[in-house]
Amino acid sequence: MSTDTNLRVIIIGAGRMGADHVERLTRRIAGAEVAAVVDIDLARAQRAAELAPSIVAASDIDQVVNREDVDAVVLATPGFLHEEALLQLLERDLPILCEKPLTPDSGSSWKIVEAEQRKGRKQIQVGFMRRFDADYQHLRGLFESGELGQPLMLHCAHRNPDTPPGFTNEMLIHDSVVHEFDAIRFLTGEEIKSVQVRLGRCTRHAPAGQHDPQHVLIETESGVLADVEIFVNAQFGYQVTTEAVFEKGIVNIGGDTGPYARTAGRWGGKVAQSFIDRFGAAFDAEVKSWVDAAKRGEIHGPTAWDGYAAAACCEAGVAAQKNGERVAVCLRPKPEMYR
Amino acid sequence: MSTDTNLRVIIIGAGRMGADHVERLTRRIAGAEVAAVVDIDLARAQRAAELAPSIVAASDIDQVVNREDVDAVVLATPGFLHEEALLQLLERDLPILCEKPLTPDSGSSWKIVEAEQRKGRKQIQVGFMRRFDADYQHLRGLFESGELGQPLMLHCAHRNPDTPPGFTNEMLIHDSVVHEFDAIRFLTGEEIKSVQVRLGRCTRHAPAGQHDPQHVLIETESGVLADVEIFVNAQFGYQVTTEAVFEKGIVNIGGDTGPYARTAGRWGGKVAQSFIDRFGAAFDAEVKSWVDAAKRGEIHGPTAWDGYAAAACCEAGVAAQKNGERVAVCLRPKPEMYR
Amino acid sequence: MSTDTNLRVIIIGAGRMGADHVERLTRRIAGAEVAAVVDIDLARAQRAAELAPSIVAASDIDQVVNREDVDAVVLATPGFLHEEALLQLLERDLPILCEKPLTPDSGSSWKIVEAEQRKGRKQIQVGFMRRFDADYQHLRGLFESGELGQPLMLHCAHRNPDTPPGFTNEMLIHDSVVHEFDAIRFLTGEEIKSVQVRLGRCTRHAPAGQHDPQHVLIETESGVLADVEIFVNAQFGYQVTTEAVFEKGIVNIGGDTGPYARTAGRWGGKVAQSFIDRFGAAFDAEVKSWVDAAKRGEIHGPTAWDGYAAAACCEAGVAAQKNGERVAVCLRPKPEMYR
Amino acid sequence: MSTDTNLRVIIIGAGRMGADHVERLTRRIAGAEVAAVVDIDLARAQRAAELAPSIVAASDIDQVVNREDVDAVVLATPGFLHEEALLQLLERDLPILCEKPLTPDSGSSWKIVEAEQRKGRKQIQVGFMRRFDADYQHLRGLFESGELGQPLMLHCAHRNPDTPPGFTNEMLIHDSVVHEFDAIRFLTGEEIKSVQVRLGRCTRHAPAGQHDPQHVLIETESGVLADVEIFVNAQFGYQVTTEAVFEKGIVNIGGDTGPYARTAGRWGGKVAQSFIDRFGAAFDAEVKSWVDAAKRGEIHGPTAWDGYAAAACCEAGVAAQKNGERVAVCLRPKPEMYR
Repeated sequence: MSTDTNLRVIIIGAGRMGADHVERLTRRIAGAEVAAVVDIDLARAQRAAELAPSIVAASDIDQVVNREDVDAVVLATPGFLHEEALLQLLERDLPILCEKPLTPDSGSSWKIVEAEQRKGRKQIQVGFMRRFDADYQHLRGLFESGELGQPLMLHCAHRNPDTPPGFTNEMLIHDSVVHEFDAIRFLTGEEIKSVQVRLGRCTRHAPAGQHDPQHVLIETESGVLADVEIFVNAQFGYQVTTEAVFEKGIVNIGGDTGPYARTAGRWGGKVAQSFIDRFGAAFDAEVKSWVDAAKRGEIHGPTAWDGYAAAACCEAGVAAQKNGERVAVCLRPKPEMYR
Repeated sequence: MSTDTNLRVIIIGAGRMGADHVERLTRRIAGAEVAAVVDIDLARAQRAAELAPSIVAASDIDQVVNREDVDAVVLATPGFLHEEALLQLLERDLPILCEKPLTPDSGSSWKIVEAEQRKGRKQIQVGFMRRFDADYQHLRGLFESGELGQPLMLHCAHRNPDTPPGFTNEMLIHDSVVHEFDAIRFLTGEEIKSVQVRLGRCTRHAPAGQHDPQHVLIETESGVLADVEIFVNAQFGYQVTTEAVFEKGIVNIGGDTGPYARTAGRWGGKVAQSFIDRFGAAFDAEVKSWVDAAKRGEIHGPTAWDGYAAAACCEAGVAAQKNGERVAVCLRPKPEMYR
Repeated sequence: MSTDTNLRVIIIGAGRMGADHVERLTRRIAGAEVAAVVDIDLARAQRAAELAPSIVAASDIDQVVNREDVDAVVLATPGFLHEEALLQLLERDLPILCEKPLTPDSGSSWKIVEAEQRKGRKQIQVGFMRRFDADYQHLRGLFESGELGQPLMLHCAHRNPDTPPGFTNEMLIHDSVVHEFDAIRFLTGEEIKSVQVRLGRCTRHAPAGQHDPQHVLIETESGVLADVEIFVNAQFGYQVTTEAVFEKGIVNIGGDTGPYARTAGRWGGKVAQSFIDRFGAAFDAEVKSWVDAAKRGEIHGPTAWDGYAAAACCEAGVAAQKNGERVAVCLRPKPEMYR
Repeated sequence: MSTDTNLRVIIIGAGRMGADHVERLTRRIAGAEVAAVVDIDLARAQRAAELAPSIVAASDIDQVVNREDVDAVVLATPGFLHEEALLQLLERDLPILCEKPLTPDSGSSWKIVEAEQRKGRKQIQVGFMRRFDADYQHLRGLFESGELGQPLMLHCAHRNPDTPPGFTNEMLIHDSVVHEFDAIRFLTGEEIKSVQVRLGRCTRHAPAGQHDPQHVLIETESGVLADVEIFVNAQFGYQVTTEAVFEKGIVNIGGDTGPYARTAGRWGGKVAQSFIDRFGAAFDAEVKSWVDAAKRGEIHGPTAWDGYAAAACCEAGVAAQKNGERVAVCLRPKPEMYR
């Protein structure tokens, strides 16, 4: 399609993320527009569609996916619904932005990878938005340029003020640490070899059945060690930080910024309270990048392979949570198409 | 017009700022599109129009301003051309985003204010983009809320790495300090009463005929004192900072941010090198805000009155540069429409 | 005397500063001991002398100043008593550490300078302790080395949480800004040429009769402009900062340090609450430097000339407070001995 | 002895640390003086003794230890000589400041603990100077007060610019990580239960036979997990940091401080280049505290038990270096005297 025409997008799933995509594509980002919103809960799809009169609401993908004027799809349903939808969408030549996870486990993710290979070209981008954050991109640049020498270690922390009801130990890996898995893979350009999880002392603010914080120790192919503090009931705010140790220097991202005050005996500023404060601009940049590439029939962001690898890391992580030992990450050989 | 239809905009002036607006409205910002680009140098207009096939290039406003499908105008020609263009554009009911200055002097600015009053509603927004910077807005919020008590002093610094050829002492006031005049007016919500300029010691990096840095001391109606260091050949980078002194605390904006490194015996990060690094997001937010308001026939940003007041401050500033004394700022009574 | 023997010191004045000197020389600093404490209030002298059994308490200098075993004197009485005491002490060959001010006015300070000249060598060090602060010394080094080019401007702030009863506008100059006068002279190595004071808006926390904050604009011989925010009821804490603008860079000292916390939605640390937090180490270093030099019959710190020049600046400052204009600082020619 | 009389100290060992103690006690710290310096290399003892005519130089402890006028001993010989010297010194009632390690292994350290118990009172302080650093003390206060809730994790880094020739993997634990073992015990007030060491990727700046950096994961009795990055050829400078994760907040110490500059496109300051820059004041405070307590016959700092526990941790650390697994730390029951 012409890069000057708006990309016409179907949003599948009108929950928080889906509705946010409707608003982003309609109100904030140039170059695209929402053709339709699909949600099994039609009323929810209709509410999201109210943003513009031209947006169609539907309760089933089939009602809209074959329309002539549809160019691309954003898949924002819960992860367990992804496999079926992705296989169906791959049949058409539509570019897909699939919110993470690609699928909930590495077995089904591998099926997507295989299906995409049969199509012969990359069609799916997975929603690891950190790759579009300016700080992560700067850090990635230092890994690539080698100006500080080789990378040796990473120290990562992922802190949430609290967790929604029902947030389990497994979700702590699948929903939170998964971003660290992808960020480590993105920064180092390497696959992850093993994962160790140690539980340590538990905060009184953890809900029943959840052990928080946890200490995750990750090793990449070349031996870069990355420790991750995952702490999802940290009370004080939302914070994601990475410290990268190179042979000739140490670089930190995710530090505290914003207006600086001295008042009531303290200096400093305000801590972010949600991932929107921290990664709002990255979400916009992610979708903008996907829109621009999709018009040219390309995928520039994380691929189905990245989604598959993340799923395999999560499985190792959950196993490591249970035994406290180092668990190897087993990956199938990487298909040529993703190299 | 419907808020769901794109605002169709003419860009007048295809220099650096104008071309940037073409790209912003075409590629980055949702809700608007460029209908035409006008520049007396038709080739330059044509280059800017290449961004989308639908953009018309013209060498004269008259060729495009009466088109049915035009909703609004961005005026990005040099300031000395603004008066004539604004008077002509006011005749139509088009919303106008006028890059600063409104006009180069308070006399002609007042004519614009009068013409707009005759129209009976605000139609012109002046391009003081700092008002759309997140930090300035946070600080403005503290002035409004009073949570730190009354404001007492401001310490401002405006530093450029260097200046283009021909940048005179007067331009130092009209092009650089003008932003501080507007920011001080925006933050305090008060008019400026007097300006004093002291020249002090001059850097060896100042070009012939330019005295740099200069020390500007500004007083608002209620007695808030604001000192401004204007230093346009500061070598190290681009930096704009404000420290606001309240009765119960001190707040700083514009501090150094970004990735933090320890390498080669030093800790810290990189300094911005241009106003784009520092205010790029503010420009986008400014235009986005203007587009959204323009669709509803409103102006939410700085008005023609603000452009007039800034021109009057600049005149006092230039006089103060010459005599080193405190020079009063003389303003006509503020018309009801701008209150 | 031998540099290995303790310097035996008389402390004159057993108020807060005097008692602190007794403790410093007795408990903290190597190389000296207190021989006697003198205070017109004998009970107060006796309390201060309790720190060591060897310390003699007296109510009159004459009772102890002629003792064989006395090597040096610290003068810590109120400033209005300094002139007489200094003239008497100069008669003996004792090194003197005189808490600021040298004397309360430039006329009497000049008499001390003349008397010291008649003695033919420097005997008096004035207690401007900032010269011994590590940050000020680092900054002084940058002025001397020229590695950032010539100095152009200084931005200074001096903030106290509040003031003791009876702290007048004049004291704001004589007790607080006086440190800035000396620091500016120390950093630039130049005399001060003029002082302007602007009152601006007054905080509600200022006691009756005191205008706070005030804005002081100082110019040195070579044209370096230094603005000083003096704000003595700043509530939030104690803070003294200097930002030095050089041709090739900007350097700040006095920024916020110490443990860094993220808690309850805020990042940052604690603000100092008194000059002891900020300058405690500088006081120790000052006295240690004086003790070591005194043993060799030398004075390495600020001299009687520096005390005289500070008094002259304060007089200009108080005059400028009253008229709001730029007031010239008039100094007699600098005697050869102080060059 | 009277707290007003100088404590007369023998320094045993006139190497870098010993000579530094001579200077500290003679020139910087009040309340003590050096009676004698002992070194098997008499010339070296004599050089150190030149600082004051009253200091005696000797090549053998026996020549000076029985002098009437000796009150205390600083033991600054290499660690393998400590056992014999400590057992001999314990026989006298002299307070001892023993530079770390107490002894090189937990077996011999336990003999010292036993010998001290037979004496019936604490006589030995071990030279873990971090306990006297203002930042570590502040952090310790937060552990004690519980104002941020319970401690959950610690993230520690210990970075040197480079290592002296012959610095082995074992020394990396015994000389560097040993400080982290003690700091973690000091902060948490708990014993260490296990140590894991992972080697990861090695910097090209590591000398042959040394693997650098290493990742140490430590667990305390209550389950607090502490990861330590030990990186002794980090090139950029010397840096020791601790981040403590509490239930209600995160606190960092060891961050970068000092003058702040913006120059040549960078903001920031200078990184410390040696442990003296970082812990110089802590060394002074440590010795001052020991001197003051010694005069009262007390020990307030880390004890022989702390030296023994550190030795046991180091042994576990070296074993863990070899097998990459979690190794338990085995401690004998803690004698009543040290509780």
